[in-house]
Amino acid sequence: MTFPVLYLRKGAERRLRAGHLWVYSNEVDTHRSPLTDFEAGVQAELRAANDKPMGTVFVNPHALICGRLISRNASHGMTPQRLTDRVETALALRERLFDKPFYRWVFGDSDGLSGLVIDRFDDVVVVQISTAGMEQMKESIVRAVQRLAHPRSIILKNDGKMRKVEGLDTYVEQAHGPEVDLLQVEENGVRFEVPMEGGQKTGWFYDHRMNRQRLQAYAPGKRVLDVFSYVGGWGIQAACAGAAQVTCVDSSAGAIDSVHHNARINGLDNIQTIEGDAFEALKALCEEKEKFDIVVLDPPALIPRRRDQKAGEEAYARLNQLGLRLLDRDGLLVSASCSMHLSQEKLTDIIRSSGRKIDRFVQLLEQGHQAPDHPVVPGIPETDYIKSCFVRSLTGFL
Amino acid sequence: MTFPVLYLRKGAERRLRAGHLWVYSNEVDTHRSPLTDFEAGVQAELRAANDKPMGTVFVNPHALICGRLISRNASHGMTPQRLTDRVETALALRERLFDKPFYRWVFGDSDGLSGLVIDRFDDVVVVQISTAGMEQMKESIVRAVQRLAHPRSIILKNDGKMRKVEGLDTYVEQAHGPEVDLLQVEENGVRFEVPMEGGQKTGWFYDHRMNRQRLQAYAPGKRVLDVFSYVGGWGIQAACAGAAQVTCVDSSAGAIDSVHHNARINGLDNIQTIEGDAFEALKALCEEKEKFDIVVLDPPALIPRRRDQKAGEEAYARLNQLGLRLLDRDGLLVSASCSMHLSQEKLTDIIRSSGRKIDRFVQLLEQGHQAPDHPVVPGIPETDYIKSCFVRSLTGFL
Repeated sequence: MTFPVLYLRKGAERRLRAGHLWVYSNEVDTHRSPLTDFEAGVQAELRAANDKPMGTVFVNPHALICGRLISRNASHGMTPQRLTDRVETALALRERLFDKPFYRWVFGDSDGLSGLVIDRFDDVVVVQISTAGMEQMKESIVRAVQRLAHPRSIILKNDGKMRKVEGLDTYVEQAHGPEVDLLQVEENGVRFEVPMEGGQKTGWFYDHRMNRQRLQAYAPGKRVLDVFSYVGGWGIQAACAGAAQVTCVDSSAGAIDSVHHNARINGLDNIQTIEGDAFEALKALCEEKEKFDIVVLDPPALIPRRRDQKAGEEAYARLNQLGLRLLDRDGLLVSASCSMHLSQEKLTDIIRSSGRKIDRFVQLLEQGHQAPDHPVVPGIPETDYIKSCFVRSLTGFL
Repeated sequence: MTFPVLYLRKGAERRLRAGHLWVYSNEVDTHRSPLTDFEAGVQAELRAANDKPMGTVFVNPHALICGRLISRNASHGMTPQRLTDRVETALALRERLFDKPFYRWVFGDSDGLSGLVIDRFDDVVVVQISTAGMEQMKESIVRAVQRLAHPRSIILKNDGKMRKVEGLDTYVEQAHGPEVDLLQVEENGVRFEVPMEGGQKTGWFYDHRMNRQRLQAYAPGKRVLDVFSYVGGWGIQAACAGAAQVTCVDSSAGAIDSVHHNARINGLDNIQTIEGDAFEALKALCEEKEKFDIVVLDPPALIPRRRDQKAGEEAYARLNQLGLRLLDRDGLLVSASCSMHLSQEKLTDIIRSSGRKIDRFVQLLEQGHQAPDHPVVPGIPETDYIKSCFVRSLTGFL
């Protein structure tokens, strides 16, 4: 098969050679290969300015990321077979790591499938397609999932924000099997049910699974505050591991309903909830002189874009200081972040300075990352976003 | 109790305020407080240049690190009671985290006990004292350990290199109970025996325990190469978790003997050994076209001092490239480092460039750190030294 050729400007091949998979529109030599010659989603051969072949790409002339590397071999396009092979290679890792079929099956670029995310909830599979190139492979994706996992239901949850950037319409489609109202999830041995309608993204965030597992080791007998709880991922697991009492805070009434529902199906009667803004709720608890043994902070990305850096870091600092204030004399702060723009070092430094400000001796016990079903590709910094710090905070110690 | 006063130069208090506990000799105002006025190991009050009290310190006029903060309260010296309280606070954390009494009980500065390390092996406790200040507390330390853990044996293994810098003699002393020839260790459910005489440091490195536990998840059915194996910490645990076959490489004949001994006591008959230089052994295996499913690289610190940075990074790069070469088409590289001077980012970048050089698609699945019985104090970078990368390496994938 021969492909049209997309030429890079001089030097633009460097990041790709170092391991990245994306081509930005300003890196294309538009004299040699005008982007307007390409339709959204077509495959092309990619060449460096000196004509050296760089591989194949999906092209989208309308997007800032106008090329996504398919292969470093210039004759390997994305075929149904190659797609199936990659989905299978991704599955092999998850099957080796997890004893039950609940995981992120495909994590986009990290699995060599830019623009594709697949989450598996036993026999329900949720697919998200976010690029024009991957949209072309839609039928092959559904067939690969059917062949490899024989699920009861496959849902195309193609309603992400990215799709507009790529010029794609947004829709949710039942690609196979009966509709699913309630997603059944199991994580670290604990059951959850999440309504499909109105749930966030694919409905569940597996990325913190290892960190929530580690929380279970600290939970027995403790009073836990789970801030930005969503449906109770951290709090319910802490309670199932033996926490004495758990309080979940979330601003969404639907999420709070789900917390109560998940408490019920796990037979828990020690889950309280606070519906409201997290910062306001924490301040109120401080004023009431409430104390907890464990405070979990798992906010949404407070630095969504690079330009939000300063304001975002200040928000993390305020949040962590409030969290530390609410801890008893020997307490544990679990401080998480899903902001790609907040480094592990910066988060640790925020905790350091927050601790110094209110004279706590802080011991960083564990540094957690995204679970192995969300692999990081070292050449693609964008694939590395989750971090968590497990911090023991001692009052009057030093 | 009143203490002599050690005055800091202007600005020298900044690092301490940010969370560090050390005073360097060039930070002392030697006009106001000549270091020659202090005897090694005495306690003093520390004051900033503007006379503000900074707390109390152990002083050693002969050492580069001439002051080690005891407390941020200027009237709190190190007393037998305060020492016991801190050893007890350290113990509370370990008892909460580990179901068996095998752990680093005290980790120096990170537990507010600069110059003191205590490792616990059930009813055998190994104490290391490395500063003149802590040497003054020797009897209190032994009494605290006796009172809190009632061990059968307490060994003072005071033969570390640091002691010379502090002007202390080196010795090993049986402080309590019968002598111990063979240290009995249990880690992640696997038994080990390590000869006390000639063993490294306290005899066992608990710092990688969580990383070795994670290795167990990947091991079943796999062919494992454990490079710089010492007594087989990684390899034997992988075999106990179901690895098909394990090869341990170490340059020490004593370590290799211990590998075989530990294989025997765990009833394993699938452990091979190679005695020799790790780099040479890896090259020979490459030439023989040997392949493994998992390669573990856990070298000693290849960047012992800042001045070794460049040569050390090159050594890590050579090592990781050899490791990747020895992996089969879908393999796992476990790349560890105990060099404080090698950051997690740098190690990841070495793996990235090693992978690119030999055209492997690498997925960073897990980033491991030191176990929680080795807490990091965010203001003291020296306390953060262990890192590990779990990397899936795919050949012919992209």
